[in-house]
Amino acid sequence: MLGSTHGTFTTGLRARVDACGESPRTTVHGVTAAPGDQDVSGRPLHAAVPDLDRFFRPESVAVVGASDAEGRPNTGITRQLLAWSERVGARLVPVHPTRTSVFGIDCVPSVGALTEPVDLAVLLVADPLPVIEELAETKVKFAVAFASGFAETGEAGAAAQERLAAAVRRSGLRLLGPNTNLNAFERFREDLEGPAVALITQSGHQGRPVFTLQELGVRLSHWAPTGNEADLETADFISYFAGRPEVGAIACYVEGLKDGRSFLLAADRAARHGVPVVAVKVGRTETGARTAASHTGKLTGADQVVDAAMRQFGVIRVDGLDQLQDTATLLARARRPQADGVVVYSISGGTGAHFADLATEAGLRLPTLPQAKQDELHTWIPEYLSVANPVDNGGHPVGDWRGRKIIDAILADPSVGVLICPITGPFPPMSDKLAQDLVDAAEATDKLVCVVWGSPVGTEDAYRTTLLGSSRVATFRTFANCIGAVKAYLDHHRFTTCYRSPFDEAPRTPSPSFRKAQALMRPGRRLSEHAAKQLLRAYGIRVPREQLVTSAAAAVRAAGLVGYPVVMKASGAQLAHKTELGLVKVGLTSASQVRDAYRELTDIARFESIDLDGVLVCQMVGRGVEMVVGVARDDLFGPTVTVGLGGVLVEVLGDTAVRVPPFGEREARSMLAELRGRALLDGVRGAPPADVDALVEVVLRVQRMALELDGDLAELDINPLMVLPRGQGAVALDALAVCR
Amino acid sequence: MLGSTHGTFTTGLRARVDACGESPRTTVHGVTAAPGDQDVSGRPLHAAVPDLDRFFRPESVAVVGASDAEGRPNTGITRQLLAWSERVGARLVPVHPTRTSVFGIDCVPSVGALTEPVDLAVLLVADPLPVIEELAETKVKFAVAFASGFAETGEAGAAAQERLAAAVRRSGLRLLGPNTNLNAFERFREDLEGPAVALITQSGHQGRPVFTLQELGVRLSHWAPTGNEADLETADFISYFAGRPEVGAIACYVEGLKDGRSFLLAADRAARHGVPVVAVKVGRTETGARTAASHTGKLTGADQVVDAAMRQFGVIRVDGLDQLQDTATLLARARRPQADGVVVYSISGGTGAHFADLATEAGLRLPTLPQAKQDELHTWIPEYLSVANPVDNGGHPVGDWRGRKIIDAILADPSVGVLICPITGPFPPMSDKLAQDLVDAAEATDKLVCVVWGSPVGTEDAYRTTLLGSSRVATFRTFANCIGAVKAYLDHHRFTTCYRSPFDEAPRTPSPSFRKAQALMRPGRRLSEHAAKQLLRAYGIRVPREQLVTSAAAAVRAAGLVGYPVVMKASGAQLAHKTELGLVKVGLTSASQVRDAYRELTDIARFESIDLDGVLVCQMVGRGVEMVVGVARDDLFGPTVTVGLGGVLVEVLGDTAVRVPPFGEREARSMLAELRGRALLDGVRGAPPADVDALVEVVLRVQRMALELDGDLAELDINPLMVLPRGQGAVALDALAVCR
Repeated sequence: MLGSTHGTFTTGLRARVDACGESPRTTVHGVTAAPGDQDVSGRPLHAAVPDLDRFFRPESVAVVGASDAEGRPNTGITRQLLAWSERVGARLVPVHPTRTSVFGIDCVPSVGALTEPVDLAVLLVADPLPVIEELAETKVKFAVAFASGFAETGEAGAAAQERLAAAVRRSGLRLLGPNTNLNAFERFREDLEGPAVALITQSGHQGRPVFTLQELGVRLSHWAPTGNEADLETADFISYFAGRPEVGAIACYVEGLKDGRSFLLAADRAARHGVPVVAVKVGRTETGARTAASHTGKLTGADQVVDAAMRQFGVIRVDGLDQLQDTATLLARARRPQADGVVVYSISGGTGAHFADLATEAGLRLPTLPQAKQDELHTWIPEYLSVANPVDNGGHPVGDWRGRKIIDAILADPSVGVLICPITGPFPPMSDKLAQDLVDAAEATDKLVCVVWGSPVGTEDAYRTTLLGSSRVATFRTFANCIGAVKAYLDHHRFTTCYRSPFDEAPRTPSPSFRKAQALMRPGRRLSEHAAKQLLRAYGIRVPREQLVTSAAAAVRAAGLVGYPVVMKASGAQLAHKTELGLVKVGLTSASQVRDAYRELTDIARFESIDLDGVLVCQMVGRGVEMVVGVARDDLFGPTVTVGLGGVLVEVLGDTAVRVPPFGEREARSMLAELRGRALLDGVRGAPPADVDALVEVVLRVQRMALELDGDLAELDINPLMVLPRGQGAVALDALAVCR
Repeated sequence: MLGSTHGTFTTGLRARVDACGESPRTTVHGVTAAPGDQDVSGRPLHAAVPDLDRFFRPESVAVVGASDAEGRPNTGITRQLLAWSERVGARLVPVHPTRTSVFGIDCVPSVGALTEPVDLAVLLVADPLPVIEELAETKVKFAVAFASGFAETGEAGAAAQERLAAAVRRSGLRLLGPNTNLNAFERFREDLEGPAVALITQSGHQGRPVFTLQELGVRLSHWAPTGNEADLETADFISYFAGRPEVGAIACYVEGLKDGRSFLLAADRAARHGVPVVAVKVGRTETGARTAASHTGKLTGADQVVDAAMRQFGVIRVDGLDQLQDTATLLARARRPQADGVVVYSISGGTGAHFADLATEAGLRLPTLPQAKQDELHTWIPEYLSVANPVDNGGHPVGDWRGRKIIDAILADPSVGVLICPITGPFPPMSDKLAQDLVDAAEATDKLVCVVWGSPVGTEDAYRTTLLGSSRVATFRTFANCIGAVKAYLDHHRFTTCYRSPFDEAPRTPSPSFRKAQALMRPGRRLSEHAAKQLLRAYGIRVPREQLVTSAAAAVRAAGLVGYPVVMKASGAQLAHKTELGLVKVGLTSASQVRDAYRELTDIARFESIDLDGVLVCQMVGRGVEMVVGVARDDLFGPTVTVGLGGVLVEVLGDTAVRVPPFGEREARSMLAELRGRALLDGVRGAPPADVDALVEVVLRVQRMALELDGDLAELDINPLMVLPRGQGAVALDALAVCR
C-alpha cells in the first residue's frame, strides 16, 4: 500500500531521514537543474533573476519630462535625480520636446533622439505608454514610471496597466512602476560598513522608517519602491538582493503579491543563499485586504495561505514597521549562532524575571547555566543572588572591573548563543559602564549580544552614542521586539541550516497515475463518491473495498464479495450531507439487512428527489482518527493542500493546516504538528496511536494529484480519512471531487 | 427545575437583563453594605482602604539609621530623604544611637526617644524587627523597611518575615516592605497638570521607565515600591489611589500577589470609581513564576486564573513595560469616549491599509464614514483618494489650510470616537504642520486624538516639542502600542459603564441547600458517583432519575421505576474511567438486558478488583451537547469555577474558561463565549441549539456550591453535563466530588 508507486516526490521522501533537527547540515546553495525547468503543473522551478546592477548603478540616466521651471512638480524630482546621479557617478540626460537645457544640461527632444546608450530612463510623464514604445527602439535597459492612475484606480486603470505591461514585454526593457516614486534615488550613507539591509516597499511612506535607520547607524544598501509592479515585482528584487554580497537581510513591506509562484521562488533563492527575508504583509483582515487593493491594485491573497507559504520558505513575517526594522537589522548584522541558548543578564531580579517570562513564552530556550559557571559568576556576584539564568548581578558589580568579567564569563559558556541585557532604567553611574562593557564584549565575540534600552526618553548618551555606535550590539527599545527578533534570528539559522529546496524535488513529469486519473475527470462537474474514490485509488490512496450496485440482489452479491459487515451509502454526483439525510447505513451483517437497506436508501432518495447513480456497498473499516485532507485553489498560489481533524471538529474549530506545493515530507509532518487537536493522533483515552506515517503519505499523494491535475481539479476533499492504528494505514471513507 | 431556589445570587440574576451592551448605564459608585461584611465563604466583601495621605505627604519623618559618614550606603539614602522631605515640607528627624547630628540636624538616640509624633519612620537598619517593636510604643503611623533577606531568600527568610508581619499587626502601624527602596521618595515634577499616573511596582528597576515618563511630560503622582508586602500590599495602594482625585490611571508591575481576594476587592473599588488599572503581571510561564518567586518571595498563581480574575474586574493586563507606559498614559488622560468608532487618517494609502489591517484584527471598529462626510472630505482631498476610512489625504492637503479642516471634519462625525494619525515617515514640510494641526484640533475636542510617530530616530522637533508638548494628543512610537492602548481605552469605558460589582450580590448566608449538602460530605474522601449526584441535586442541578441497587432483582425493579430504556453503571468511590473498563451499559430496553448487565458489571468489577457500592440504574437522557462544569482550588484565589466542552474535546484541546467567584450571570455567559468550540452550543450539522440558559444556571449553582462548601469541597467535576436542546434543560450525567 505504502510502497514506492510514484517515485521520489511522494514515497521517496520517506527515505530522506528527517534528521536535521539533530545533525545540522550546511546550507544548500547549489541549483541542480537548469533555469527554464517546469514542474508537472507547468510552473517554473527557478527564480528568474534580473540583473539589476545597472538599474541601481547606471552610467547614464535619461529623465523624460525633466524640468527646471519654478513651481513644477517635475522640477523637484529632476533636482533630486540630478543630485543622485552625481553621487552615483551617472551622466544625466534631460529629455524634453521643447526645452534646450534643464539645470544647464543640454536636453534631447525625445528618447528616439538619444545618441548614446542609456541604462535607465526615468519617466516623469503622465502617460508612460508612448515613451515605452519609443524606448523599445533604443538600448535602454531600465525604465521607471512614476505616473499613477493604473490598477490602483479600478478596472479601466487595470486595463491601461495591462497595455503598459504588454508594451514593456515587447520592448525588452524592464520597468519599475507605474505608481512608484523617488525612493530608489535617495541618499544612502556611504560611511557605514558591514552587512546592509536592502529594502523593498509597495509604499514610500511605509518604507521611510526602515530607510531612516541609517540615521541610527544601520547600513541600507538599496530601496526598491515597486509601486504597481506592471513588470518588475517584489520577487525580482528579493532574487536580485539575495545574490548581492553587501546585503545581509532583505526587508519588505508588501500589500499584495503579483504572483505567488515567483514570490516562492524568490524566497527559495534567498533561503538557498541563507539571506533572511523579513516582511510586513498587509491582509490579515478583510479591511486590510480591501484597503491595500485600492492602494496598489494587487490581490492580498487568502491570509492563511500567504502565512503558510511564507513559513514554508523561511520568510519572516512581522506585523509592525518597528518589528521590521528591529528584526531586519539584527538578522543583517548578527553572525551565525553557535548555540540556541539565551541568557538574560540584568541588574535587577525583577527585570530578569519579567524578561525570562516573556522570552520563555515566546519559545526561546533559557538554559540553566552549569554549576561551575554559576560558581564562577558568584566570584563577582553576591552569593544570595540567582545566577542560574536569568543572571541577576544586583547592580553594584556593573560599576567596576567585575562588570566586563561577568559578561565575558557568560559568553564563554558553550550553551550560550545569545546574551540579552535589558536595561529598563538608565542610571548613568551603572548603565553607562554596563553599556560600554557590553559593546566591548560584543566586539570580542561572535556571539550575539542584545540590549534593551527601556527608557522612554531615548536621548541618553549611553543609548545614542555607546549602543547605537556599535554595529555588534543589537539594541532594542522594547522587550517584545528584542524577543521577536532573537526568535527570528535563531529560527532563521535553524531553517537555512536544514533547508532543502522542495523545487529540486518537485515532480517534472506525470506519474503513471495521471493517465488513469484523467480518464475519470468530468470537466465542470462534481464526481460521484465512487468516481472520486477511484481517483484516489489511482493515486494509491486506500479506499474501502466497495461496489456500486443498482439492485437489491446486486447489493447482496456485492456484500458477499466485499465481506460482512458492510456499510451502504446512496451514491450520486449531487449528494451532500448523506448522514443527515439518512443515506448511510452502517454495520449491516446479513443479506436481509443489506436488502432492507437498499430499499430504504432508494426510498429516501426518491422521497427527497435525489438522483442516484446507485448504492455503494462498502467494506466496514475499523475505528481510527477521522481526518480531512483536501485540495483547494488559491488566487495567488494555485492549488493548496489542507489537512485537518475530521468530523464536527473541523467544522466548529477550523483546526486545519495548509501548505502550498511543492513541499516535502518534513513539511507534511509539520502540518500535523500545527493542529491544536494533534494529540488525538497520539492516542487519547486509551486509544492506540494513529498511523501518522500513512497520513503523511496520503498528504503527499494528494499533493501529487493537486500538481498533476492542476488544470482539471478544482477541489478535492477526503472527509473522513480514517487513520487507523499505527501500522494499519489510512483509508478514505468518503471523498468529494469537483472538476474544473 | 430552573425556578428560584436559591435567591438572587443564582436564579435571581436572570431577571437582570443583560442589556448594557445596548443601553449603557452610569457607573455604580455606591457601596451598599458596610465594610466588614463577609460572603458565605467568610471572605470580605469590601476593600480595606488604608488612609495613606500621611505616608505620601508626612509632616515629620524619622530616619532610623541615618548617616552622613562618607562612603556609607545609608548616607546617600539619608541625603535623598533629606532632599525629598524638604520638597514635600516634612520635618526630618535622624535617629542614631551614637551620633548627635546628621547633616547638621540633631539626632535622637532611638525611636523611643522621639519627643513629638512622627508620621513616617524610614528604617535603614539591617534588622527592622526590634525597631518595629519599639515603634509600637510611639504614635508613628507608617514605617518603611529597606532591609532584604526575607521571604525572597527562602524558608528561613519567610519565617523572619512572618515575625515581622506579626510585630506590625501588634504595633498598629502600617509597614511598607521589607525589601523595598527609595522609589516613594523620588522627585516628582510639580509643573505638570491634568490627571496623573500612579505607579505601584514590586521592583524598582522595572518601575523606572514609567516614572521616567515625567521627562516626556506625563504627570506621575505617586510611586509605591511594595517590596515583599509583609503588610501593605499592591491591593492597598490600588484601593487608596482609586479614591485620589489627581489619579487618572494606576500602573502596576506585579510579580506575585499576596492575597487574591484583596486584589479583587481593590480592582472592584477601582472599577466602581472608574479608575483604570493597567498591570504587567509576571508568571505567564513556569520560568517566569519561579524567577519572580525568588525575587520578592510571592506566589504568582495559576496564570489562567490570574488572567481571568483580572478581566472579571476590569484590570488591563499588558506584557511589556512599554505597553504599560503607553496604555496607562492614554487611559489617565483621555476623556470618556463619545463613540467607539475609530478613524485612521494618513498621508499615505499604504499606511492607512496597514494600520487598518492591524487595528481591525485587534478588534477595533473602523466605521465607513457616511457619504455626506466623504463628500465633505473630498472638497479638500483629491477625488481619486479613498476617504471612507481609512482617510487617505495623499499628502499635499496637510501642508496648507486644508489640513486642519480635514481633521475637524473627521472629528465632527458622530460615529467617530477616536482619530488616529500614523506618521510613519517624518517629512518636516508636511509632518510638522500635520502634528501642529492635530495638537490644535485635540485641544478643541473631547474626542481622542492619537498620533503614531513612526520615525525610529525620535529626536525630531515635531515629536519632542509639538506632540509630546501636548497632553491632549496621545503619542505612540509603534502601531501595536497605539492599537493596544486604544482598545484598552474603549474596553475600559465599556466595562465601567456596565459594571455592577458582583460583591454587592454575593451570597452572605448559606442557602437551604447547604445543610443537605453538608450531610453528604465525607472529609478527605472522594464521593461515589451517586453521592456526588445527590450533592448536585441538593443545589437544584438536575441529574437523571436513578437508583443505586445491589442485586439483579433490585436492578430490574429500579429500571421499572426509572423507566426504560436505562443506562447501568458500576458505582464506587474509587471508580474512574468507567467507560474504558466496560463498566457502563447504555440503551437497555428489557428486564433481561438489565439482569444480564447487572451480572456483567459486577463480574468485571470483581475481575478488576474494584470495590463497588452497587450499580446505578439511570434514566437514559436524550442527546445534547456534552459540557464539563467544575470547581477547583487556586492557591491565590480559593475556589474557581470552570466550564468547558466535554468529552475528548476537553482533554485534547483544553477548551475551558475559568472564573473566580463572585461573578454574575453576564460573566457566566461570557465564559461560554470564550470557548473555541462555542458554536457547538448554537447547533451544528443540523443539531438544534442547546439550552444555554440552563447551562448558565448550572454554572451559577455550581458557583454557589463552591462558595458555600468552600471549607468542605476540594474538587467537583460534572462530566458530562448533557445540555439538551433549548427549553429542555441540562442534566449532569456523571459527577466526581472530592471532600477536603
